[in-house]
Amino acid sequence: MALQPEQKQLGYEQTLMHGRYTKELGQFAKSEAARLRVEREQKSKEDEFREYRDDTYCQKCKTKLVWIRDWTFSKIGEDWIFLFLLGMLMALLSFGLDYTIAKFQTAHIWVYRELAGHPFLQYLAWCFYPIIFVVFSAGFAHLVAPQAVGSGIPEMKTILRGVVLKEYLNFKTLIAKVVGLATSVGSGLPLGKEGPFVHIASIVSTLLSKFIVTFKGIYENESRNIEMLAAACAVGVSCNFAAPIGGVLFSIEVTSTYFAVRNYWRGFFGAVCGAFVFRLLAVWNQEEETITALFKTNFRVDFPFDPQELIAFSFIGVVCGFGGALFVYLHRKIVDFNRKHKQFTRFLQKNRFIYPTLVALFITSITFPLGLGQFMAAELTQKDQIDELFSNTTWVVREKVDIIPDPATYWENPNVFVTLVSFIVMQFWMVALAITLPVPAGVFMPVFIIGAAFGRLVGESMSAWFPDGISNGHLLNKIVPGGYAVVGAAALSGSVTHTISTSVIVFELTGQITHILPVMIAVLIANAISQLLQPSIYDSIIQIKRLPYLPDISSSGPRIHNTYVEDIMVRGVKFISWLSCYQDLRDLLDTSNLNSFPLVDAPESMILLGSVQRAELEYLLDKKLGRLARIQYTENKRKQAAADSGRLPSQTITPPSRFTIVSYHSNEGNEPNLIIPISENPNGSISSRKSSVADLDDMTPEEQAEWEAAVLKEQIDFSDSQIDPAPFQLVERTSLHKVHSLFSLLGLNHAYVTTLGRLVGVVALKEIRRAVEHTNFYKNQRPPVVRTPSTPSISPEPTNRNGSRPQFNLLVDEAT
Amino acid sequence: MALQPEQKQLGYEQTLMHGRYTKELGQFAKSEAARLRVEREQKSKEDEFREYRDDTYCQKCKTKLVWIRDWTFSKIGEDWIFLFLLGMLMALLSFGLDYTIAKFQTAHIWVYRELAGHPFLQYLAWCFYPIIFVVFSAGFAHLVAPQAVGSGIPEMKTILRGVVLKEYLNFKTLIAKVVGLATSVGSGLPLGKEGPFVHIASIVSTLLSKFIVTFKGIYENESRNIEMLAAACAVGVSCNFAAPIGGVLFSIEVTSTYFAVRNYWRGFFGAVCGAFVFRLLAVWNQEEETITALFKTNFRVDFPFDPQELIAFSFIGVVCGFGGALFVYLHRKIVDFNRKHKQFTRFLQKNRFIYPTLVALFITSITFPLGLGQFMAAELTQKDQIDELFSNTTWVVREKVDIIPDPATYWENPNVFVTLVSFIVMQFWMVALAITLPVPAGVFMPVFIIGAAFGRLVGESMSAWFPDGISNGHLLNKIVPGGYAVVGAAALSGSVTHTISTSVIVFELTGQITHILPVMIAVLIANAISQLLQPSIYDSIIQIKRLPYLPDISSSGPRIHNTYVEDIMVRGVKFISWLSCYQDLRDLLDTSNLNSFPLVDAPESMILLGSVQRAELEYLLDKKLGRLARIQYTENKRKQAAADSGRLPSQTITPPSRFTIVSYHSNEGNEPNLIIPISENPNGSISSRKSSVADLDDMTPEEQAEWEAAVLKEQIDFSDSQIDPAPFQLVERTSLHKVHSLFSLLGLNHAYVTTLGRLVGVVALKEIRRAVEHTNFYKNQRPPVVRTPSTPSISPEPTNRNGSRPQFNLLVDEAT
Repeated sequence: MALQPEQKQLGYEQTLMHGRYTKELGQFAKSEAARLRVEREQKSKEDEFREYRDDTYCQKCKTKLVWIRDWTFSKIGEDWIFLFLLGMLMALLSFGLDYTIAKFQTAHIWVYRELAGHPFLQYLAWCFYPIIFVVFSAGFAHLVAPQAVGSGIPEMKTILRGVVLKEYLNFKTLIAKVVGLATSVGSGLPLGKEGPFVHIASIVSTLLSKFIVTFKGIYENESRNIEMLAAACAVGVSCNFAAPIGGVLFSIEVTSTYFAVRNYWRGFFGAVCGAFVFRLLAVWNQEEETITALFKTNFRVDFPFDPQELIAFSFIGVVCGFGGALFVYLHRKIVDFNRKHKQFTRFLQKNRFIYPTLVALFITSITFPLGLGQFMAAELTQKDQIDELFSNTTWVVREKVDIIPDPATYWENPNVFVTLVSFIVMQFWMVALAITLPVPAGVFMPVFIIGAAFGRLVGESMSAWFPDGISNGHLLNKIVPGGYAVVGAAALSGSVTHTISTSVIVFELTGQITHILPVMIAVLIANAISQLLQPSIYDSIIQIKRLPYLPDISSSGPRIHNTYVEDIMVRGVKFISWLSCYQDLRDLLDTSNLNSFPLVDAPESMILLGSVQRAELEYLLDKKLGRLARIQYTENKRKQAAADSGRLPSQTITPPSRFTIVSYHSNEGNEPNLIIPISENPNGSISSRKSSVADLDDMTPEEQAEWEAAVLKEQIDFSDSQIDPAPFQLVERTSLHKVHSLFSLLGLNHAYVTTLGRLVGVVALKEIRRAVEHTNFYKNQRPPVVRTPSTPSISPEPTNRNGSRPQFNLLVDEAT
Repeated sequence: MALQPEQKQLGYEQTLMHGRYTKELGQFAKSEAARLRVEREQKSKEDEFREYRDDTYCQKCKTKLVWIRDWTFSKIGEDWIFLFLLGMLMALLSFGLDYTIAKFQTAHIWVYRELAGHPFLQYLAWCFYPIIFVVFSAGFAHLVAPQAVGSGIPEMKTILRGVVLKEYLNFKTLIAKVVGLATSVGSGLPLGKEGPFVHIASIVSTLLSKFIVTFKGIYENESRNIEMLAAACAVGVSCNFAAPIGGVLFSIEVTSTYFAVRNYWRGFFGAVCGAFVFRLLAVWNQEEETITALFKTNFRVDFPFDPQELIAFSFIGVVCGFGGALFVYLHRKIVDFNRKHKQFTRFLQKNRFIYPTLVALFITSITFPLGLGQFMAAELTQKDQIDELFSNTTWVVREKVDIIPDPATYWENPNVFVTLVSFIVMQFWMVALAITLPVPAGVFMPVFIIGAAFGRLVGESMSAWFPDGISNGHLLNKIVPGGYAVVGAAALSGSVTHTISTSVIVFELTGQITHILPVMIAVLIANAISQLLQPSIYDSIIQIKRLPYLPDISSSGPRIHNTYVEDIMVRGVKFISWLSCYQDLRDLLDTSNLNSFPLVDAPESMILLGSVQRAELEYLLDKKLGRLARIQYTENKRKQAAADSGRLPSQTITPPSRFTIVSYHSNEGNEPNLIIPISENPNGSISSRKSSVADLDDMTPEEQAEWEAAVLKEQIDFSDSQIDPAPFQLVERTSLHKVHSLFSLLGLNHAYVTTLGRLVGVVALKEIRRAVEHTNFYKNQRPPVVRTPSTPSISPEPTNRNGSRPQFNLLVDEAT
C-alpha cells in the first residue's frame, strides 16, 4: 500500500519503516535521511538535553511556553497527563457512541411500532433498516480503512507482542471504526462493541502519543508505546463496560502473555479518569445512573443463595464451558465454509454488499416480531434484554421475590421456557454468523446475553422445581433467577474469551457482589472445559487471519519442561562466514529466501559472530557486482585509458553514498535501527539485476563474465556492514517453557542455538508454535523428536537484532 | 546451619543443595549420588514413562492404586487437584487460626472486664497477658525456626525472583509460624496476619507438592514450583481477607515483577476452593456469615455519594499517600535506631525477651482502658474496631443515616474527634514499633484500621460541616461517614504496600461495590504520592534485611531507555582462557573471590566460550596440585621405583572418582544442574590446601616446589569440566529497561557483555540495582556514566548457568 500524505505528516512511517520494501522506498529513504540529518544538525546546535525546536514561533513567547510545559510535565509526569487525557477522551467518545447506538436501536423499534397494523410495511421496516445500516457500515469501512473491520482484540494482541500491523493505528482507521461501529451495532443485529472499543482506544492512544511527542518533544520509544497501548486497551474495555477494575483485568487477560506489574496502575488510572468523566456527564444530564451500575440489580444481600444451589451453578458452568467451545468451533466453521466453497465465494465476491445484505435479511426475517421473533423477545434492545434477564423477579412463579415489579411480557409468549430456549438456540448461531460480517463489531455482549438467557433458564427451572425455595434446615430461601442469569452471563462470556475477569465485570455491571462464589465457580469450570476443547475466540480469529502469533502454553504438564530446544531446532543452518567469497554469498542468496543469516568466523569452527540482514548482504553483493560497480569499473578503465592517452573523461559518475542512519537514541536497543540500504532495487533478486545488464554497452558479455568471475572469487569485505553483534542465542538444553517465555516477552522471531560459541541450529517462531501446539494437544505424552536436519524455517519476514519487529499487512478477509 | 534429619527425609536438601558448601557437603554428596544412582537404576528397570516405585507394598494392591491414581490425575490434571487441596487446607487452617486468635483476643478483654473494680489488677492483666503471649511467640519462633519471624511477603518476593532462602519453606517453619502467629496476634497488640498467611500458604504448598511428588512421582521442576508458590501466595492472601479476587490481585502486586497471565487462574481456583470450604463451614456452624462480607456494610445504593464529595475523597487519598510514606520511613528509622545505638543494642541482646517485653509493656500501658486507652477505643478488638468504623451511622450528627442502630460508645469519649485523632496518632507509631518485634506478624490489618479511622474522621468532619448533606441541585444526600472509612482504609493500606488491589479487597470485605469511584481515586492518588516518596513497606524490609533483590522500575522517564549496558557494565573482566596454564588459574583464584568466571578462547581474541564455576576451577587445580595428585605422583614414582627394583608396592590408592551428577530431566534448563564436585574441601582455598602438606612425608619441600612449578606451567585440561556453554549475553547497546526485564524474568545474577562474540564486560545484579535506583531517583536527568574500569562486582554468591539460583541464609535480625 502506498504511503498516504497525511501519514507522512504524522511521522507515521518512522515506526512502519522497517521492512517495507516497497517501490518508493529508495526515494523515501533519501528524503527521510535528509530530514533526519537536518534534525540532527538542529539538535546538535541546542543544549544536549533540550528538545528539538523549530523556528516558526516567536522566540520569547516560546521560551515561556517551554518553561510552563517543562514545569507541568516535570511536576506531574507525562504519563499521568497522557492517561488522564486518554481516559477523558475515551469516556466522551464512549458516551457519544453509546448515545448514538441507543438512538439508532430505539429508532428501529420505533419505526416498527409506528407502522403497527401494516404487517408488510412493518416487515420491510424491520428488515431494511438493519440492512441499510450494515451495508453502509461495510461500505464505509471498506472505502475508508479496511483495517477497521472486525473486533480488534486479536490484532491488538498481535501488536502487543511486538508485530507492526500496517496502518492499523492511524486516523483513517479511527474514523472508519467509529462510524462503522455506530452503524453496525446500531442496526440492531446481535453485535458487540468491546473489541472495537479496544481498537479505538489504541488508536486514540497512538494519535495522542504522537501529539504529545510533537508538543513535548520527548523521546519516542517502542517499549513505552507498547506500555501505553496496553493501558489504552484497558481503558477501552473499561469504558465499554463502565467497569474500571474488570476492564483492566479483562484487557490484560485477552492481550498479554506476560504482564509487567509496574504498568498495572496505568490501566486503572486511565479507566478511573474515564469513569470520573462518565459520572460527571451523568450528573450534568441529571441522571441518577452511576458508573457502578450499568445493569443494576438488587438481589437480597443477606442470603443470596443456598449452598445446595451451588450444584446448579456448577451445572451452568459445565454447559457454558461446552457452549463456549461450540461457539468458537461454529464461528470457525462458518468462516471455513465461506472460504472453501468456491462457487459461493465467487458469487459473494461479485459485490461486497451481497454477503452483508443476505446475512442481515436472513437474521432480521427470523427475528421479525410478528413471525418467529415473538418467541424470542426480539422487540427488545440488547440493554433491555439484559435488564429483564437480570431482573429480580421470578417469571415462572409469578410472584415477586423482592420489591421490584416487572412485567417481562416479551419473555412469556407463549411460555418462559419456550421463549428462552428458542432465544438461546437462535441467537447462538445468529451471533456466530453476524460476527463474520465485514463490519467493525465485537462478540462479547451478544455472547453475554446468550449466557444470561441460559442462566435465567436454569434459574426459572429451579424456581419451578422448588417454588418455595431450597430448605437449609432452619432457613427457607426463594430462588433468585436473576442471580442465575448473572452467573450464566459471566460463565459463557468467560468461556468464549477464555477469561476469568468476566466475573469482576459482572460485579461492576450489576453493582452487586453478592453472587461472588457462584460466579467464580461457574466461570472457572467453564474456562477449564473450554480451554481444553478450543482456543479462545480471539486466538481462533488470530489463526483464521493467520496473524503471526505464539500460542500460550495451556498445560503445565511435564512435556513443556521436558521438551528442549534440541528437540525442535532446525539443524544445518544456512550461514555466511567471515571467510566466504562473493560466490558463496550469491549462492546463498539464490538458494534461500530467509531475511537474515548467521555470520560465523569460519565454516570449520562455526563460532557465531552475529547476524546479517538479507538486505545488507544484497547490498554487499550489489556494491561489488551491480550496475554501478560495473559502471565504476568501466569508468575507471576508461579513466585509466584516458590517462594513458592524456585525455580526461567526459563525465565522472560519483559512486553512490550509502545512507546508514542509525538513530540509536530515539530507539531502544531491541528496536530495529533505521538502516536504509540503498540499492537500485532493494527487493530485487539476482535475476532482476541481470536483466539490467542490457543497459550497459560499455562491457561486452564476455568481458562481464570474466569480470564477474574474478570478482566473485574475492573474499567478502564486511568492514562497513551493519552486523547485529548479538543475535539471540539459546543452548540445546533450554526448555520449551523457557524458550516460550523469552520469545513471548522479547517479541523474538528466531534465535540461534549455540554450544560453546559454535552455531548448531536455529529455532524460529514457527517451530516453537508447532511445538507448543503439539504440547498443548498431547499434554502428558512423550515429547516430539524432530531431529531430521532440514532447511531452517525462519519465515520470510524482516527481522532484526535482539528480536524483531516483523511487519504484516493485515489479511483483510472480506468474509471474516 | 546443619542439615536436620527430618529435612533429609523430606528430600528437602535437593532444592537447597546448590551453593551449600558446608562441611558435610562432601559426605552428603556421596550419599546423594548413591541415592540418585539407585533411583536411576530402579527407574531404568521400569517403563520409561512410569514412575519410581519402591517395593514395600503389596504389588497387586499397588497396581490397582497406581491405576486409580493415574486415571484421576490424567482426567483432572494434577494442578487442579493440587490447588483444590491447597485451597481446602488453607481455608481450614485459616478458619482454625481466626477462631483461636479471636478467642485469645476476647479472653484478654474478658479477663480485664472480670477484674472490674480492681484497677491495679486490671492493669496487670491488661499488660501481662499480651507480654506473656508476645514473649512466648518470640521464644517459640526463635527456638523452633527463626525464619518464621516477620511478615513473609518480602521473603516470598525474593523467593519468587528465584533466590533460594535456606529452610524458609519447611515443616518446622510452618509450626513456628502458625503457633507464633496465633500468640502474637492473639496478644491484642496491633499486628496483622496477611503476610504470615502468605508465608504459611507457601509452606503448605511446598509440603503438599513434595507429598504429591512422592505420591504421583511426577517431575519436580523449578519453574513449576515457582508457579505453584505464586498461586499459594494468592491463596494465602485470599484466605486471610476472605477476598478471592482482591487477594489474588494483591498477591500478584506484592510478589511479582512480571506476571504470566496463563497462571492467573491458579490463584483464583485455589482461592475459590478456599472460599467454598469457608462457606460450607459457615453453614455447618449455622452462621449466616458468608465469604462475601467479613465486614459487611449497608450503605445506600442509589446515591452513595455526591460528585462534590470526591474532593474530600481525594483529600483522603493525598493525606494517606503522605501518611503511608511516613509510616514506611518511621518503621525504617526505628529499625535503624535499634541497630545503630550500640549500647542499647547490647542491652537488648543480653536476653532476647527484653525487647518484646519492653515494647509490649509500653504499648499496653498506653492503651490501658482506664488510662489513656479510654481515648482511643482500646477495649475493642481489631474486628470490632473495623465493624464500628465502617458502620452506617453518623456519630457526630447523632441521627441514624440508615436503619441500623449503633451505640459506638467507645469512640465518643470524650468526643468523636478527640478519640479518632488520638487513636490515629497513637496507633501510627505503635504499629510501626510493634512490627519490629521478632514475632511472626504482618502489617496490613493495623494499617488498614488506621486508614479507616482517618477516613471516618474526615467523614465525621464532613458530616458536622454539612449536617443535611451536600446539595446537588435537586437532590440532598446525607454524608455517609462509613463510606469515608472504607475509602481511607483502602487508601492507607494501598499507600503503605504500594498496591491498587486494596480497592478490590475492600469491596469484597464489605460486600458492597457502591464506593468504587471514590475508593479508586483515593487509592490511586495515595499510591502516586507514596511511590514517589518511599519504597513499599515490603521493599523497605527487603532493603533492611539485605535480601538479594532487584527494585522495580518506578519511572518510565527517558533515562531508563537511554541508559545502556555500556554505561553501567564493568570492564576489565577477570577471565580464564582456553590456553591458560595452571599458574594463571591459581593467580585468578587467589586474587578474586567471584563464583564464576568467563572462559574465552584466547586472551587476544577474547571470544567468549562459556562460563565456569569457581568450584569447578578449584577442582581442576586441586586435581592437578592437591594432596591426592601428589600422593598419586609419589605413588607412581614409588611404583616406578618398585618396578625398577622388581618389588610390588604395599598398597595402592585408587584415584578419587568424580561424581558429576547431571539430573537434566528433573530440572529445567535454567536451573543449576546438580553438579557435586568432590574434592577434599570444596570450600578450601589454596592456603588451606598448603597446610595439609605436612601430612606428606613422601615429598621433600624442594621436591614439591619443583614438582609444583612444573605442573603449574602446564596448560589447563578442560576436557571433563562442566562448562556452562551459554552464559547470558548482552550487547553494549542493550537498554537498562530491557536488562531489567531480562534479569527480573529469568532471575539472572549476572550477564556478560559481548561484541561480535568478544567479551567486553560484565553486569551483575549490583550494577543494575544501583543504576535502577539511580534512575528512579533522578528521573529526568542525564544518565550516569560509569566508565571507570574497575574490578567486576559480581557479588560472591554461588551462581550458575543461564542465570543463577543464589542461596541466602536469612538475616534474622533479632530487632527487626
